[in-house]
Amino acid sequence: MDIFDRLKAAAASDWQSYVDHDFVRQLGAGTLPQAAFQAYLVQDYLFLIQFARAWALAAYKSRTLADIRVAQEGLGAVLNETELHIRLCARWGLSRNDIEAAPEHQATVAYTRFVLDCGAAGDLLDLHVALAPCVIGYAEIGRALAPQGLDGLGSHPYRDWIGEYAGEGYQSVASAARRHLDELAGRAMTERRFVELAALFAQASRLEADFWQMGFDLAGH
Amino acid sequence: MDIFDRLKAAAASDWQSYVDHDFVRQLGAGTLPQAAFQAYLVQDYLFLIQFARAWALAAYKSRTLADIRVAQEGLGAVLNETELHIRLCARWGLSRNDIEAAPEHQATVAYTRFVLDCGAAGDLLDLHVALAPCVIGYAEIGRALAPQGLDGLGSHPYRDWIGEYAGEGYQSVASAARRHLDELAGRAMTERRFVELAALFAQASRLEADFWQMGFDLAGH
Amino acid sequence: MDIFDRLKAAAASDWQSYVDHDFVRQLGAGTLPQAAFQAYLVQDYLFLIQFARAWALAAYKSRTLADIRVAQEGLGAVLNETELHIRLCARWGLSRNDIEAAPEHQATVAYTRFVLDCGAAGDLLDLHVALAPCVIGYAEIGRALAPQGLDGLGSHPYRDWIGEYAGEGYQSVASAARRHLDELAGRAMTERRFVELAALFAQASRLEADFWQMGFDLAGH
Amino acid sequence: MDIFDRLKAAAASDWQSYVDHDFVRQLGAGTLPQAAFQAYLVQDYLFLIQFARAWALAAYKSRTLADIRVAQEGLGAVLNETELHIRLCARWGLSRNDIEAAPEHQATVAYTRFVLDCGAAGDLLDLHVALAPCVIGYAEIGRALAPQGLDGLGSHPYRDWIGEYAGEGYQSVASAARRHLDELAGRAMTERRFVELAALFAQASRLEADFWQMGFDLAGH
Repeated sequence: MDIFDRLKAAAASDWQSYVDHDFVRQLGAGTLPQAAFQAYLVQDYLFLIQFARAWALAAYKSRTLADIRVAQEGLGAVLNETELHIRLCARWGLSRNDIEAAPEHQATVAYTRFVLDCGAAGDLLDLHVALAPCVIGYAEIGRALAPQGLDGLGSHPYRDWIGEYAGEGYQSVASAARRHLDELAGRAMTERRFVELAALFAQASRLEADFWQMGFDLAGH
Repeated sequence: MDIFDRLKAAAASDWQSYVDHDFVRQLGAGTLPQAAFQAYLVQDYLFLIQFARAWALAAYKSRTLADIRVAQEGLGAVLNETELHIRLCARWGLSRNDIEAAPEHQATVAYTRFVLDCGAAGDLLDLHVALAPCVIGYAEIGRALAPQGLDGLGSHPYRDWIGEYAGEGYQSVASAARRHLDELAGRAMTERRFVELAALFAQASRLEADFWQMGFDLAGH
Repeated sequence: MDIFDRLKAAAASDWQSYVDHDFVRQLGAGTLPQAAFQAYLVQDYLFLIQFARAWALAAYKSRTLADIRVAQEGLGAVLNETELHIRLCARWGLSRNDIEAAPEHQATVAYTRFVLDCGAAGDLLDLHVALAPCVIGYAEIGRALAPQGLDGLGSHPYRDWIGEYAGEGYQSVASAARRHLDELAGRAMTERRFVELAALFAQASRLEADFWQMGFDLAGH
Repeated sequence: MDIFDRLKAAAASDWQSYVDHDFVRQLGAGTLPQAAFQAYLVQDYLFLIQFARAWALAAYKSRTLADIRVAQEGLGAVLNETELHIRLCARWGLSRNDIEAAPEHQATVAYTRFVLDCGAAGDLLDLHVALAPCVIGYAEIGRALAPQGLDGLGSHPYRDWIGEYAGEGYQSVASAARRHLDELAGRAMTERRFVELAALFAQASRLEADFWQMGFDLAGH
């Protein structure tokens, strides 16, 4: 068991409430109302702006060039992801202006600022544990929704989104993040600290579940 | 118009959604369900722990001993307020353990971490603008709910709470905070920045409104 | 061996260069030129302003009310110490204005901003390790310079200063800080991290030695 | 006059002590002892690691994707500059290990941590003002040392170094930084704040002058 598996096991019910949320199930089944997906997508764009800041915080909190470079790549990946979102939104009829003018929902504020604050108050390990449900979790969700790979998705209405996270590019980003988390834990984790980190991870997972729920709420479901 | 009045005017509808929220009206009328009040009170305790950190952040971000001392007093006042909460909760049958074991609600996370992040990303003025809906707003609400002073409250069920914020002690803390905000604005505010600060203030006011709503939601209303 | 003893042992020569610096020896012997002492005292006042910020940072980085209170007391103690400095400086003919108008010396900037950055980049343990040479070290130096207690100092020219740090008040502050450091290490220190912490501690000790040297340099010795 | 010109004028003597330091004159004349240059170069590498963190801090403190991207480019440029340093050092017989094993000098700690702390305590404008003597100042120095362009340098012993900062690549980075500083000032600078910013700029300029001096000191001059 690496540290990510240990965190999931310690926060099992919160983790489950996130990765197995109804939003995810309906997304996978292709039955998710389009309005809920669009509402989610717009907030996720606002989310990514804060996540870019979180990777920058990781670079700032680094002591070695190697750690700075890991964070710089994370920052670059998130900035690229924002462009993909713009393109994805465009296909759904949402312009960049529509997106950037949307007010941040409470759920978006809660998870993003929680992560940023974990990083500001704690060390690199705290920050990466708080990021993990998103960074590594989306890869798990993506893979689970495309069990036979992208070819199996056919003309699935959310094919592009699933493909982004199930695809090799994102999967390898997530694998690298998982190894990096394990290295950070090897450097700085005690068993007493594990208890605190598991609590952070559980809270971050709940906030991710709330983020899916927001998609339904904004769409009036 | 001081800066606080300008911010309220610029964010009028968000401000109104906060200070005139149904939770506040029912609190004032004495009709607020006890379960909603208790749920609010427990989360407000968790909120204050993060607010103590926000005042500490203000001290850290200060450049002069005078600014450090203002923030140190704010920190001390919040730490005292947590003790009042413990006593208030005890009267409602909630022990310190009950309170500290409660998980932070999304609404609590959202507003507190938003304030902390405004402070970390910005300067002292950003931080105090984000704090203002709480620090100064509670004094306005307290005064509005006790228009004839505490004597006029009779055996009001929420007399202790209203008394805390309508009382002279809190009123003078809030007046000092308001003057300090005006000084900071005199030092560092441009008109272009006012637009950004008004957006922060509006968002903080919405998050405060969401915080009242949480009391209802947790109590199942 | 507690963690403080381990850090001293791991950074023995840097630690020695600090606690056994010529400035300390001459201070103890009463032969330190008055100009060097005054130059030191003025910079130490500027140093304390930044140290107050470092304690505020510790409060900000805390996750529990207990840790916030420890830091709040540290902040209060430093603010009190600045008042003692003003009185001590007054006896040497230096007014508050003289002191606050003095430019910060490179040595003052280096140690204080190093400590603040250790705290911002790392966690509470990093911050307290970087503070320890000052907070705990001054208690060791004070006691070493007054081996027979304050009565043994007679009319020593630096009696007030030595008395401040050898006295019971400061000694018990330093003991509490030492126990707190040990608790933080028990919570979050791994052996791999010890190597990094010892490097921080060594660098902080060298910067403290440079701070004594500055007293000589500014006085033209 | 843009804001950079105003800052230089307000801190004229400190600025002069930096850009016209004996180290710079001897570097330009080609008479600088090689030992002083090497000592400087090693510390400048350690300096750049902290400067990469300062750009990451700028990205973290940004509120818009546009500001995040400016900072990301700054971070990337500094990381590239570290590689140039490794190559430059190699020509002088210094390996990457030699460089990374060198202890940070007090002058290196002082300037880098001062900049980082200006950014953490203040806003983006404070951070960029503290960075400006380095980012924009090196372009001025480079150009001043190569008045007839790189061709005029012939077989100058410090041709590579001068060429790096006098060259078009660095000159355009510095011009962009200067425009960005002006934009930030247009957004957030008041005349009262200018006084504080000029004090930061003056202190940063003095710390840069101390950084040149360190080259002489380490080489025993």
